[in-house]
Amino acid sequence: MTHITLAHGNGGRYMRQLIEEVFASQLANPILDSNADAVKLPVLTGDLMMSVDGFTVKPLEFPGGNIGSLAIHGTVNDLAVSGAIAKYLSLSVIIEEGLELKTLERIIHAMADAANESGVQIVCGDTKVVPRGEGSGIYLTTTGIGERKKDLSPGLKNISSGDQILVSGPIGDHGTAIMLAREQFGLKGNVQSDSANVIALCSALYDLPGLRFMRDPTRGGLATVLHEINQATKLGLRIQQVNIPIRDAVNTVCEMLGYDPLFLACEGRVVAVLSEDDAEEALDRWRAMPAGADSHLIGEVDSRVARVVLETELGGERILQELEDDPLPRIC
Amino acid sequence: MTHITLAHGNGGRYMRQLIEEVFASQLANPILDSNADAVKLPVLTGDLMMSVDGFTVKPLEFPGGNIGSLAIHGTVNDLAVSGAIAKYLSLSVIIEEGLELKTLERIIHAMADAANESGVQIVCGDTKVVPRGEGSGIYLTTTGIGERKKDLSPGLKNISSGDQILVSGPIGDHGTAIMLAREQFGLKGNVQSDSANVIALCSALYDLPGLRFMRDPTRGGLATVLHEINQATKLGLRIQQVNIPIRDAVNTVCEMLGYDPLFLACEGRVVAVLSEDDAEEALDRWRAMPAGADSHLIGEVDSRVARVVLETELGGERILQELEDDPLPRIC
Repeated sequence: MTHITLAHGNGGRYMRQLIEEVFASQLANPILDSNADAVKLPVLTGDLMMSVDGFTVKPLEFPGGNIGSLAIHGTVNDLAVSGAIAKYLSLSVIIEEGLELKTLERIIHAMADAANESGVQIVCGDTKVVPRGEGSGIYLTTTGIGERKKDLSPGLKNISSGDQILVSGPIGDHGTAIMLAREQFGLKGNVQSDSANVIALCSALYDLPGLRFMRDPTRGGLATVLHEINQATKLGLRIQQVNIPIRDAVNTVCEMLGYDPLFLACEGRVVAVLSEDDAEEALDRWRAMPAGADSHLIGEVDSRVARVVLETELGGERILQELEDDPLPRIC
Repeated sequence: MTHITLAHGNGGRYMRQLIEEVFASQLANPILDSNADAVKLPVLTGDLMMSVDGFTVKPLEFPGGNIGSLAIHGTVNDLAVSGAIAKYLSLSVIIEEGLELKTLERIIHAMADAANESGVQIVCGDTKVVPRGEGSGIYLTTTGIGERKKDLSPGLKNISSGDQILVSGPIGDHGTAIMLAREQFGLKGNVQSDSANVIALCSALYDLPGLRFMRDPTRGGLATVLHEINQATKLGLRIQQVNIPIRDAVNTVCEMLGYDPLFLACEGRVVAVLSEDDAEEALDRWRAMPAGADSHLIGEVDSRVARVVLETELGGERILQELEDDPLPRIC
């Protein structure tokens, strides 16, 4: 068979073959057991951390990755920004009848590569097949279990006025790459998704006593992370627009189509908040790494303002509004 | 708003409101933190067990439950049959644009009730919204973390010839209830899904040294569990058809529609394999419990046969074939 049928999801022979030949062969590791209802995880010594993410990106494949690699990076990154190193993932797959088997194989292959690079093992999985017209090729969910050093606890609660805000690289690449890959705009461009694990970027900062908070700016982009900080802390933020790294190609596409790159998803960037004392050290560390070469200090937490204030290049100021309408659905 | 829109999945204000008002309010517990990328789990002392399941059942609501309660029972039960008590769940929700908010609320309400009854907490979640026509109301994935006593390890590897096979109650109720709920057959019937947690049934057997293996016969039904045992152990099975508990209403519906109840899903039953020494004790314990009142010894593992042999009421024998075509898609 060249395409997925409903019988691939019914618990019988076709499903067992699919799981053995496509999933287990690519994702094999000593813990994964396709005959078991549950698996035993090795003993973890640090704090046990858990995170989950669903993936519905369209198209399934795009410059710089596919839904398979994205499903690894998304969950590994949620753990990394929380101070935890991802160790074990579960995988749930909801396939639409009619998906080409070769497409599925490419997705699982990219997933295996991303898992290897990220140092995680997929230890249990589940596959469902839904009828044609009730899915969109494939939806994935990954849940990650990670380990965190016992004295590490980055979080919104640690932020105070005067703290500095860093971003690890150019924003909006993933969102722009997805837009272009959809071809609905008749544009071609040379923007790749930044989809990658941010384990090295995050762990480079774990030992800084002034590390307050980290987040990967995915859905809703950098702007949404800034609003989360504002809402959770009730502290204002002052952001210097000129310091926010954005690729020329991303700016060009956004200007043509009327999008604001501040709201577009990244899938391999980190926003970090640090004390004034440690912000420069963090920036130095990031800039010494390939993934952080274009990192910038973009602003600070400032109790003297109430909202997210964007200082424009010409010396003006505007309030950055919260996202309401969806600029770009199905981005991750 | 009365229905889900794409903006409920974009990471912005509507999504935050949805998560706070529908999910967090119903599922609240001390660990769940809708502002965090990952959560810290309390220390677990036993073996750490992990399991995942996706849920795509149609219709979303049926006599005896809905997709929300099913998503709790499915994962809690996969852990229970593996010897582990479920403690923490992650939840991934993929909603189709246009789902009625009241339907979503009923689903999350049933989920909260089932989680409470099962003694588990939903500690992290993710929500995506897909466009109308690319989903089917709602799809759920739950990943469970459970704790298992260090000397307990039921599994296919423990099974040997002479072991006895028990089933905890009538089979095929869930599959039949879903069929009737679809109304496509123009039939009405009074069959409820058996959807329930099997924690008490499973843990009642944990201390029996002759406990070999347990499984909940979901997709593919009892027949598929018997084939799994046959394939994994290379040992044959002899099953006495007359001892398999099946409700009259289930038999009637199956006869009218040409289904075999052996292949229909259960969502609150356990198949257990025990040594000859402990099988009677297990049956006694189950029969003393409301959930196991109609449990039966249905056959045994027998190396003298090669396949799954069904002994019919009239003294005949037939080989039980493996499921190929899907008798009933979207059952869980």
